[in-house]
Amino acid sequence: MKVVVFLPSVRDGRNATRVRKFIEAQLKSKYETSVLDPAELDLSMLKMPLHHYQDRKKIPKVLLDIEAKMTAADAFLVVTAEYNHCIPPALSNLLDHLGPSLFACKPSGIIAYSMGPYAGMRAAVQLRCLLSELGTLSVPMILGIPLVHTSLDDGGKASNPHLEPGLATLMKQVDWYATALRNHRDKVGVFARNIGE
Amino acid sequence: MKVVVFLPSVRDGRNATRVRKFIEAQLKSKYETSVLDPAELDLSMLKMPLHHYQDRKKIPKVLLDIEAKMTAADAFLVVTAEYNHCIPPALSNLLDHLGPSLFACKPSGIIAYSMGPYAGMRAAVQLRCLLSELGTLSVPMILGIPLVHTSLDDGGKASNPHLEPGLATLMKQVDWYATALRNHRDKVGVFARNIGE
Amino acid sequence: MKVVVFLPSVRDGRNATRVRKFIEAQLKSKYETSVLDPAELDLSMLKMPLHHYQDRKKIPKVLLDIEAKMTAADAFLVVTAEYNHCIPPALSNLLDHLGPSLFACKPSGIIAYSMGPYAGMRAAVQLRCLLSELGTLSVPMILGIPLVHTSLDDGGKASNPHLEPGLATLMKQVDWYATALRNHRDKVGVFARNIGE
Amino acid sequence: MKVVVFLPSVRDGRNATRVRKFIEAQLKSKYETSVLDPAELDLSMLKMPLHHYQDRKKIPKVLLDIEAKMTAADAFLVVTAEYNHCIPPALSNLLDHLGPSLFACKPSGIIAYSMGPYAGMRAAVQLRCLLSELGTLSVPMILGIPLVHTSLDDGGKASNPHLEPGLATLMKQVDWYATALRNHRDKVGVFARNIGE
Repeated sequence: MKVVVFLPSVRDGRNATRVRKFIEAQLKSKYETSVLDPAELDLSMLKMPLHHYQDRKKIPKVLLDIEAKMTAADAFLVVTAEYNHCIPPALSNLLDHLGPSLFACKPSGIIAYSMGPYAGMRAAVQLRCLLSELGTLSVPMILGIPLVHTSLDDGGKASNPHLEPGLATLMKQVDWYATALRNHRDKVGVFARNIGE
Repeated sequence: MKVVVFLPSVRDGRNATRVRKFIEAQLKSKYETSVLDPAELDLSMLKMPLHHYQDRKKIPKVLLDIEAKMTAADAFLVVTAEYNHCIPPALSNLLDHLGPSLFACKPSGIIAYSMGPYAGMRAAVQLRCLLSELGTLSVPMILGIPLVHTSLDDGGKASNPHLEPGLATLMKQVDWYATALRNHRDKVGVFARNIGE
Repeated sequence: MKVVVFLPSVRDGRNATRVRKFIEAQLKSKYETSVLDPAELDLSMLKMPLHHYQDRKKIPKVLLDIEAKMTAADAFLVVTAEYNHCIPPALSNLLDHLGPSLFACKPSGIIAYSMGPYAGMRAAVQLRCLLSELGTLSVPMILGIPLVHTSLDDGGKASNPHLEPGLATLMKQVDWYATALRNHRDKVGVFARNIGE
Repeated sequence: MKVVVFLPSVRDGRNATRVRKFIEAQLKSKYETSVLDPAELDLSMLKMPLHHYQDRKKIPKVLLDIEAKMTAADAFLVVTAEYNHCIPPALSNLLDHLGPSLFACKPSGIIAYSMGPYAGMRAAVQLRCLLSELGTLSVPMILGIPLVHTSLDDGGKASNPHLEPGLATLMKQVDWYATALRNHRDKVGVFARNIGE
């Protein structure tokens, strides 16, 4: 199963790298993961989303690469931090660049982290809405990583004993939905829709 | 396909009845619908949800009847009004009475209405979070019914030309997910989970 | 300074009583508090809010009593639990019974609790929106009480060392706004508004 | 009275310019406005917010200019579009660059627009939370501009008859709070706080 992981931050001293390493290490035996990291992608602030280009030749290479990874994926993991109780702009900017057809009828799992005790849960519930509108329904469980700077070390190793079993439970749900939806896509295709419909 | 419809209000002069009639008329040729109407159910303010009863013999009949309908259902339609930008208490109270196992791995569609122009969309996004946590993921589209008191007449007939095709589009999405998830439930069962996991 | 405290739950075994006792004990030396407890008020599910009565003689006594307390108040403390990531219906039902004029130009402070680690913060951000629409702006700080059943004992005594200073900080903000707004109300009165405006 | 206006978008073909012109024209006789437009400011995706700089000499000029405008302001107007039901990243990125002291004890008004009928109200309620956490409480009314591309012409002239009186009502509320809070700041200063407190 192929999973694309979205990261939320380009901030100096960001904790996203710890979370990335944690996810990659936990998933590597069972999943083929590729990571969309805003710090590597270097997208500008949104001027035109992928699905608004009339001429595919004008689509920037960075978006075509993302498109290829997402088209191959069975599911998404979307990692969010929390800035002022809301979704970090580096994450919404990445997601908003992408059209609904890339997300259609594939599930997602939300992982929220923060340096405080509440694990970014306020951003996570906003993110549910963003993902739903894009067409990827997030599974019931939200994995929270509170006190991320101490719960995960630099190498992504978890000292918080809830995190490894928590990610396993999240993946069980993502797996269930990814398989259910893939089977049905293979049978009848996706339903077409327009954003805002 | 069997659909359970949740209504949101017991207010004097409520518009929920118009919406109920509209839905029932539109769905009757293709779906078997049963409606959970707080005005008929007469639930008290939540003291104990269904899944907290240790002795099934003590579960009130009204909850057992709801349980039976939900167990038979393939999908849910959840109708919300908007009170002070939030979910009406009659709806959250009805939903909060019910445990996650009744919603597990079945999809839902959100229909939001209000007497104003914004169709209850602020309540609708809160409701996405409530439904996800209960275990029923809401399909991407949210059907909005603005100016409900003039868009639908007393008998539920729509003067707003967007509403009939809108409901058809919503049901196309609900159908897709209901079939995908039912097929997979039949194959592997649901995944067990605890609220808050 | 007079503060009205709203409680969120009538659930069997609710933790709201611990929180009530904690607040009352902390505030008693500096504030005159009165508590609106849904478990004592016994409101029905909302049929008609106070401000919709055309004939004041028909307003139920319970609502007139609430009105009197709120009219005398300088500020509100609104305590929320979290049910399925959302506002408990007993709280929204209590608030929705009351019209915007009772809240006009008086500030509020949000206190959120849960038995989990995230302290009901998802419900708290929904509550910000409800309170703002009612006309009482909530101060920046939200006081969270995670693991409420162990953080506060039966008598409301805090074992979590953050809670007493946390409530003091919240009250500092509530105080600042209550004084600022009272001074200005005394000078120019409140601005009239309609819900939905 | 001095008002700083925040704009939400740098998108090609954005409607933010119409809204900007509408606001500037309506306010010019009574307010001194300055506009923070992400399309002019050219901020990078957030690496370090203003209040994290230990050495003020290293603060970029663009942030110092914003700081000066905000320090002089009595109130803020925050204009939001809606991208996938959420706050546009150009707006959250602008706001997240700025520390809580710049917003402390000054009110804000939210203006939401979209090309659809719901006027960006889902983004607006997220924005309430972001602004509250930054320390600027948004007044009760949210001004919605539905169908922005036809409601306002290129020059910002309103064909929708609700917009001019709507903005006047919003400003009445902003005015009330701006005066109340300024008077109290002048008397006792602001309360210090830390984000996340």
